[in-house]
Amino acid sequence: MRSGGFVSVSRPALTSIVLILSLYCFHVLALKSQLLTRHGGVTDLNAQDSVINYETWYFDQKIDHFGFLEDGTFKQRYLVNNEHWDQKGGPILFYTGNEGDITWFCNNTGFMWDVAEELGAMLVFAEHRYYGESLPFGQDSYSDAKHLNYLTSEQALADFSVLIRELKRTVLGAQKSPVIAIGGSYGGMLSAWLRMKYPNVVVGALAASAPIWQFPDMVPCGDFYKIVTQDFARSGLNCDVNIRRSWKAIDNITATDDGLQWLSGEFSLCSPLKKTDLDGFKAWLQETWVNLAMVDYPYEANFLQPLPRWPIQVVCKHLGFDPSVVSDYQLLGGISEAARVYYNYTGNCPCLNTSSTATGNLGFIGWYYQACTEMVMPLCTDGIQDMFEPQDWNFQAFSDECHSLFGVRPRADWADTVYGGLDIASHSNIIFSNGGLDPWSSGGVTRNISDSVVAIVIPDGAHHLDLRYNNEYDPHTVLSARVLEVKYFKLWITQVKSL
Amino acid sequence: MRSGGFVSVSRPALTSIVLILSLYCFHVLALKSQLLTRHGGVTDLNAQDSVINYETWYFDQKIDHFGFLEDGTFKQRYLVNNEHWDQKGGPILFYTGNEGDITWFCNNTGFMWDVAEELGAMLVFAEHRYYGESLPFGQDSYSDAKHLNYLTSEQALADFSVLIRELKRTVLGAQKSPVIAIGGSYGGMLSAWLRMKYPNVVVGALAASAPIWQFPDMVPCGDFYKIVTQDFARSGLNCDVNIRRSWKAIDNITATDDGLQWLSGEFSLCSPLKKTDLDGFKAWLQETWVNLAMVDYPYEANFLQPLPRWPIQVVCKHLGFDPSVVSDYQLLGGISEAARVYYNYTGNCPCLNTSSTATGNLGFIGWYYQACTEMVMPLCTDGIQDMFEPQDWNFQAFSDECHSLFGVRPRADWADTVYGGLDIASHSNIIFSNGGLDPWSSGGVTRNISDSVVAIVIPDGAHHLDLRYNNEYDPHTVLSARVLEVKYFKLWITQVKSL
Repeated sequence: MRSGGFVSVSRPALTSIVLILSLYCFHVLALKSQLLTRHGGVTDLNAQDSVINYETWYFDQKIDHFGFLEDGTFKQRYLVNNEHWDQKGGPILFYTGNEGDITWFCNNTGFMWDVAEELGAMLVFAEHRYYGESLPFGQDSYSDAKHLNYLTSEQALADFSVLIRELKRTVLGAQKSPVIAIGGSYGGMLSAWLRMKYPNVVVGALAASAPIWQFPDMVPCGDFYKIVTQDFARSGLNCDVNIRRSWKAIDNITATDDGLQWLSGEFSLCSPLKKTDLDGFKAWLQETWVNLAMVDYPYEANFLQPLPRWPIQVVCKHLGFDPSVVSDYQLLGGISEAARVYYNYTGNCPCLNTSSTATGNLGFIGWYYQACTEMVMPLCTDGIQDMFEPQDWNFQAFSDECHSLFGVRPRADWADTVYGGLDIASHSNIIFSNGGLDPWSSGGVTRNISDSVVAIVIPDGAHHLDLRYNNEYDPHTVLSARVLEVKYFKLWITQVKSL
Repeated sequence: MRSGGFVSVSRPALTSIVLILSLYCFHVLALKSQLLTRHGGVTDLNAQDSVINYETWYFDQKIDHFGFLEDGTFKQRYLVNNEHWDQKGGPILFYTGNEGDITWFCNNTGFMWDVAEELGAMLVFAEHRYYGESLPFGQDSYSDAKHLNYLTSEQALADFSVLIRELKRTVLGAQKSPVIAIGGSYGGMLSAWLRMKYPNVVVGALAASAPIWQFPDMVPCGDFYKIVTQDFARSGLNCDVNIRRSWKAIDNITATDDGLQWLSGEFSLCSPLKKTDLDGFKAWLQETWVNLAMVDYPYEANFLQPLPRWPIQVVCKHLGFDPSVVSDYQLLGGISEAARVYYNYTGNCPCLNTSSTATGNLGFIGWYYQACTEMVMPLCTDGIQDMFEPQDWNFQAFSDECHSLFGVRPRADWADTVYGGLDIASHSNIIFSNGGLDPWSSGGVTRNISDSVVAIVIPDGAHHLDLRYNNEYDPHTVLSARVLEVKYFKLWITQVKSL
């Protein structure tokens, strides 16, 4: 179930379909008639092989950094480990939390734990406001547009800056500790932006799989789904071709009530499909393929879902039919098997729930709001260069949906203005790492911008693979990336110490 | 009268006295019982020798750039001259408006008009929100803390950035025009911060007399008044010594009703002094000396008031007594003559009004609010290294006054966090110019920070002398400064064209 049951009720009849991305799952936003429900912080963790220890601290953070009328505070949660910290100037590696529970990101950012000893580093994982436990207005935080008004990336960056300064002021020995921002996905965007906007606070940033250019007029809106499609095409013969054909097969079969019933049974859906659910069903499938592309890791992992190693290869084993002879029923049977790789690798899932595609640790409603305000990231499909049904990017429809949902309208140009868009050459000490398998690399910085704003590309990496623990199955490209990242960290630390 | 008549009523009994600076006048803030009155834009201009022509344009600016609940807009005023603009890539010199009517700054920034032809530049002067005509809520803009909530430097910087991008998008030929931010005083701080925060929008900044370090724990709070005192000490024998003695003389003489009456007559005060007015009277005098230090220009000028050339020298001619023999009456007679140099150089002033010290083109109530929120600039006096009565910087009293006045409390550390404080070395293409006579140089950047964050000191310059028109009486140091500034402009333009 998505956080707080936001999309757990059945989908209403669609008036328009607009794709909203979360950085971990995209979503069909067509929820006009749904009430916003309370966002509940989720606390269940994924099991990790490594046992990690941290202390949980809280900081009284201003609700509004950019106005003075609202002078209230809230408890921002952050996690600290100083087991390996060299108190005489060892660095602080500061994870800039994304749209979810910080303990989940802490558990999935093994890279920081792996390098702490070598760097003599303190580790800090700061939760992003409005996610996890860091709720500015407690249970009312998501109640309406008024309470959501302080959910912006600028406020989050200010939180991080104020918190870092407070740590340096109050933690014995931390004053001389250079701080390096680290983040992945939206958290990576925040790391890069933190260095851009507050270079006095962090000496550098590692922005892993951070699509800072996935905004209007920066990159082609179709690149994202092209990469998803390429991932399937390279993972098995006919795999992308059969998925491309599946949408029409769904239409054909569900033209009759018997077909609808067959499809519900074939997929073991928890709730039988109705005619009005079809767009939602297709969106759920599409999201499944996207998520698989993001977590196509070379070893068993449990990030969005528990999955086998190279999960797309496993998925594609069910989709190898010769497309010229396969029937619609056979094809959708294969699709159903493929979907189960994603949803039921553990074998514990009695039925498939089309209202959910990933872990409950992400705060989808918060991300919806962010997408509906600042994080306007156009995506589109043409069905030719990608394996999906054609869908244009329609800003007006998107804006109207946002207005119905939240009473706010997105500002398409704002991110470009405030974060510099393509023009980031005047900044310094930022690493942008991207995986070649990761659809989000479509909006990432994949070429060096200057000597100190650099790109690292990991050809066989999925979404921020470099931020994960070292693993025996890691390709050498990610090992090299991590070595290079640490080399830059050391360079930044040396720079600041020589001042 | 100060804008909107804010301090035009007689001062109430003081419960505490807190110094609030405006960058053009400081003020005794002790207005607890006064109602806030409406801020009216003022439109009278100072006459200039040069006739300048500009078009007045308006832009629909978002009231809130950092939240999405308030989606309204207001008309931001800006002035444009493109007489000399080379449409094939000539630069845009963009004045980042301060706390006042933009036409007044436009008329007092002759430097931009002087260099427009040489640079083939378009000139733009953008008004700061909440000042002049650019009122987010019209006549209600100053009605309460709720309406004042969007008066921050961050919002102003966002206004400038959005406006510049809009100009580049819509003005034919402007897309390739590099933009250089120029400002003086608070406007200079904004120019520097604009380059720091939006380097994608401006290629560089000239921050003239911009005290970006006049914030808590950055510079000693007493330096400002030390410089004022030095200006008087160097302008006439015994000048500072006699001013230092005058405060006690005022106490002595006003101990009796006769003395009070004598003082009112001697100063030709519009309203006779009462015992309870004494702190206010002293503050008015202190502000007079500060203003003189700011506008101690080498030629006749009419910036804060119409004044002779080197006005402090003229003032000091009335204060040359041997301090060991002068009586309190003689001393205050001299002080009175000295004050008239500032208030009645034109000879048209029938009486002196202690509720006002400068031009009505500045928006004092807006600046009070800014000082009560972000612009926390500690000042203090000790009566030894300066010629004023000792007064400590008392943040708590200041905060309490702000709370009574506006219902908000200042955040002492915020400017340091958001604008980098002393740690600005990672930025580029900023010139900080400061005058040696200018008290605000106390908080200015007067040493080179790097190859491209540079300081220009004009030893015999007062407050942003370099931004004024060329004048036959200009000292060679300011002429050199202007040449160097233009040289940097050309370098930045070349840099951006070579990309």
